[in-house]
Amino acid sequence: MGRPPRGRRMFELHPRLAADCHALARRGRLHYLLQRNASLPWFLIVPESTALELCDLPGELRTELVAATDALARYVKRRFACDRINVAAIGNLVPQLHVHVVGRRRDDCCWPHVVWGRELPPCEHPPQRLAELRAALSGEV
Amino acid sequence: MGRPPRGRRMFELHPRLAADCHALARRGRLHYLLQRNASLPWFLIVPESTALELCDLPGELRTELVAATDALARYVKRRFACDRINVAAIGNLVPQLHVHVVGRRRDDCCWPHVVWGRELPPCEHPPQRLAELRAALSGEV
Repeated sequence: MGRPPRGRRMFELHPRLAADCHALARRGRLHYLLQRNASLPWFLIVPESTALELCDLPGELRTELVAATDALARYVKRRFACDRINVAAIGNLVPQLHVHVVGRRRDDCCWPHVVWGRELPPCEHPPQRLAELRAALSGEV
Repeated sequence: MGRPPRGRRMFELHPRLAADCHALARRGRLHYLLQRNASLPWFLIVPESTALELCDLPGELRTELVAATDALARYVKRRFACDRINVAAIGNLVPQLHVHVVGRRRDDCCWPHVVWGRELPPCEHPPQRLAELRAALSGEV
C-alpha cells in the first residue's frame, strides 16, 4: 500500500491495544476490537483521531462514535444475554482514545465490580466466535 | 409542589446516589451531582429517564446527555487541571442510569487505577467550592 494519502497519517493502534485485543472490523473511521481474554464479552471501539478525550473529538466523528457505541451495546446485550452494559473511556494506561463496551452478567467473574484492573481467569475466544463477531461487526449491528 | 403533571412521574434519584452525592444543578432533564468524597473531582450526570442503558435513551435525550458530558469534561479538565477525564456508565450497583465524569491527575490517590470500587481517604468539599460548582453548572460550562 506504500504511503498514506498526502496530508493523512496512517492510523496506528497503540501497541498495548494491538497486543491485548483481536481486531474485529473497521467501519469508516472506527476500529472494533475484542479483548483476547474471553472471560467477558469485552469490546473496544477506537476512533481514528489524535484527540485523547471524547470531548475533543471533531463533532462528526463524536456523533459516529456515539451511534456505533450504542449499536454495539445493543448487539452485545442481545448476543451475550447481558444484564448490563458498561461503557467507558478511561485511558489512564493507554492514552489513545478508546471506548470500552463490556457486556456484564450477574454471574460473570467480576460482578458487581468493574472489569478494569482485575485479574481475569485465562480464557480464549474460540475461532468460530471470532469469525461470527467479525462478520456481525463488519455489517450492521 | 404536590403532584407532578399528568402523565409525567416525579423524577426520583436513586437513594444511593442521593446519599453519596451533593446535588449541584439541574439543567433541562439532566441532574448534575458531585461525589461527597472530595479526593477527586468526581461528577455524575443523571438523565430523567426510565432507560437503564445509554443505548436505550430516547434520541434527543441521548444527544443532550452527550453534549452535557462533553461540556462537563472540558470544564472539569480546566477547573481542576486534570491530565485525563474518565467517562463511564456502569450501573452494576446502582441501576438508575448515570454517567460518571471524573477528573484524573497523575498525582491523585487512585492513579493509574480506576476510581470505582476503591476506598477513598476521607475528604470533604469546602462549602465555597460547592457554591462555585453550583453556580458554574447552573450556567453554561
